Amino acid sequence: MDTFTVAAPDCEARVRASFAQQGAMHTLGVSIGEVAPGRVVLEMAHTSAFSQQDGFMHAGALATVLDSACGYAAFTLMPADARVLTIEFKINLLAPAHAERYAFEGLVTKPGRTITVCDGTAWGVSGDVRKRIATMTGTMMAVRPVTKGSSER
Amino acid sequence: MDTFTVAAPDCEARVRASFAQQGAMHTLGVSIGEVAPGRVVLEMAHTSAFSQQDGFMHAGALATVLDSACGYAAFTLMPADARVLTIEFKINLLAPAHAERYAFEGLVTKPGRTITVCDGTAWGVSGDVRKRIATMTGTMMAVRPVTKGSSER
Amino acid sequence: MDTFTVAAPDCEARVRASFAQQGAMHTLGVSIGEVAPGRVVLEMAHTSAFSQQDGFMHAGALATVLDSACGYAAFTLMPADARVLTIEFKINLLAPAHAERYAFEGLVTKPGRTITVCDGTAWGVSGDVRKRIATMTGTMMAVRPVTKGSSER
Amino acid sequence: MDTFTVAAPDCEARVRASFAQQGAMHTLGVSIGEVAPGRVVLEMAHTSAFSQQDGFMHAGALATVLDSACGYAAFTLMPADARVLTIEFKINLLAPAHAERYAFEGLVTKPGRTITVCDGTAWGVSGDVRKRIATMTGTMMAVRPVTKGSSER
Repeated sequence: MDTFTVAAPDCEARVRASFAQQGAMHTLGVSIGEVAPGRVVLEMAHTSAFSQQDGFMHAGALATVLDSACGYAAFTLMPADARVLTIEFKINLLAPAHAERYAFEGLVTKPGRTITVCDGTAWGVSGDVRKRIATMTGTMMAVRPVTKGSSER
Repeated sequence: MDTFTVAAPDCEARVRASFAQQGAMHTLGVSIGEVAPGRVVLEMAHTSAFSQQDGFMHAGALATVLDSACGYAAFTLMPADARVLTIEFKINLLAPAHAERYAFEGLVTKPGRTITVCDGTAWGVSGDVRKRIATMTGTMMAVRPVTKGSSER
Repeated sequence: MDTFTVAAPDCEARVRASFAQQGAMHTLGVSIGEVAPGRVVLEMAHTSAFSQQDGFMHAGALATVLDSACGYAAFTLMPADARVLTIEFKINLLAPAHAERYAFEGLVTKPGRTITVCDGTAWGVSGDVRKRIATMTGTMMAVRPVTKGSSER
Repeated sequence: MDTFTVAAPDCEARVRASFAQQGAMHTLGVSIGEVAPGRVVLEMAHTSAFSQQDGFMHAGALATVLDSACGYAAFTLMPADARVLTIEFKINLLAPAHAERYAFEGLVTKPGRTITVCDGTAWGVSGDVRKRIATMTGTMMAVRPVTKGSSER
């Protein structure tokens, strides 16, 4: 695994403070599994509240948690005054999502001053069985406070 | 706009029946705006229940509804016995999502017997102002009942 | 179609000067069809020198020219001292590429100070018949000269 | 690493025979490094014939070889009578491509009867230094001979 240089201490505290403000994570019942420089794991139980028409978890629900895992993985390496925005992501759905619970790992593939590229994996977990159900690649942007001009992306 | 050949009548009734089974659409408060061959529009009000840390709608919430709009746009052209699965999608977030309400348009770009490619656009709507906030390209798959062998994608 | 504000005059001259330096465009036999603010069209004849195993144009050849069309569409709106870099793109192949010649249109979907999102379409053209064969979404970055610190993306 | 079940023997011979027919690989000067079930490595020297405007390898050239590496990785697991088509791919450019030579690894992430998802990595290699410069996710389709009906994707 790659090793990373953090730009600010307490990346876990900053992730937890930001995560607590995400209404989407609360509504989906997501919790933080692990936070390390360049890596965040989120966890969620299966719920029919976010199903698609066949009873599987909706692809968008998986995308939502993977996006947060990737965004926070990028955020761990950013300066203390930076916000993180998702520019874009792609998700591939590899298998139907009908496990007991799910784990979502976001990893920094390439950190950068402005742009950070992350890869994420979603796993369905039922008892002792763990199956890869989705992968994501996302491009994240650090937005810094500006003193002159626009903060526009 | 392209015109399409439908494989089965009553595409709107089939979309509405399937949509009613999507827990995710109910939980997000999404309603159907329009259904036509190769085109579906979904609508949603802003809600902090699916916000990210800055109060905007979470990218994953936009992705969830765009994915449904694209999937159902593909579904309108499929045979009556087909199910639709998302193979993959990519979303670009163009502007922060803090409008009063949102419209999500899914359009079929290329129909096919097995694979259908769709493009989607999300709009933020506040009063009379309508702003494009996200675009999606998704690859959808028709899954037919099988009599011999696997239904595996 | 959207209208755009250019940051510098002579966008066509700047595109043509940069294009002339792209070895890849020369090798593929690509020429410039149109340049306008936020829009570039490139053209290429079919050639077996860039075929895949079935004699169609290789997906990567289409991607190469679409990426240049999108990058130069973004470049038309950038300041005179900016370079353009591709952060990422996604391409969907809609139909086999075995036409007489091809047209590649890059359009700016969302301009920005740092990040510009573009959409591209590739058409196969045989006689009077024009068929859409691929679509692309790409994220482009303006890289400006820096006086302090790194030019790293 | 995952282990895979091959559907036909002699996957390396089938890859080499198909590769020999790709005009694009010949024109780019690409050679086969390794072939194993679910994994293909391709190699290429730096050449200004496929540069972009700053002298780096064009993103599309990297995409072309990564797409072939991913497509052939999928092809190794397919039945002997199948052809492989790229449905779509996404590439992220992580660093400028100005190395002495390049290696392109395609890996199967999820095999399937119809759809196979692959991930690819491009490395720049200069002397003993090896640097990751691009990543790809691609969706590949097995096209089988049909006796009734269309072979349309």
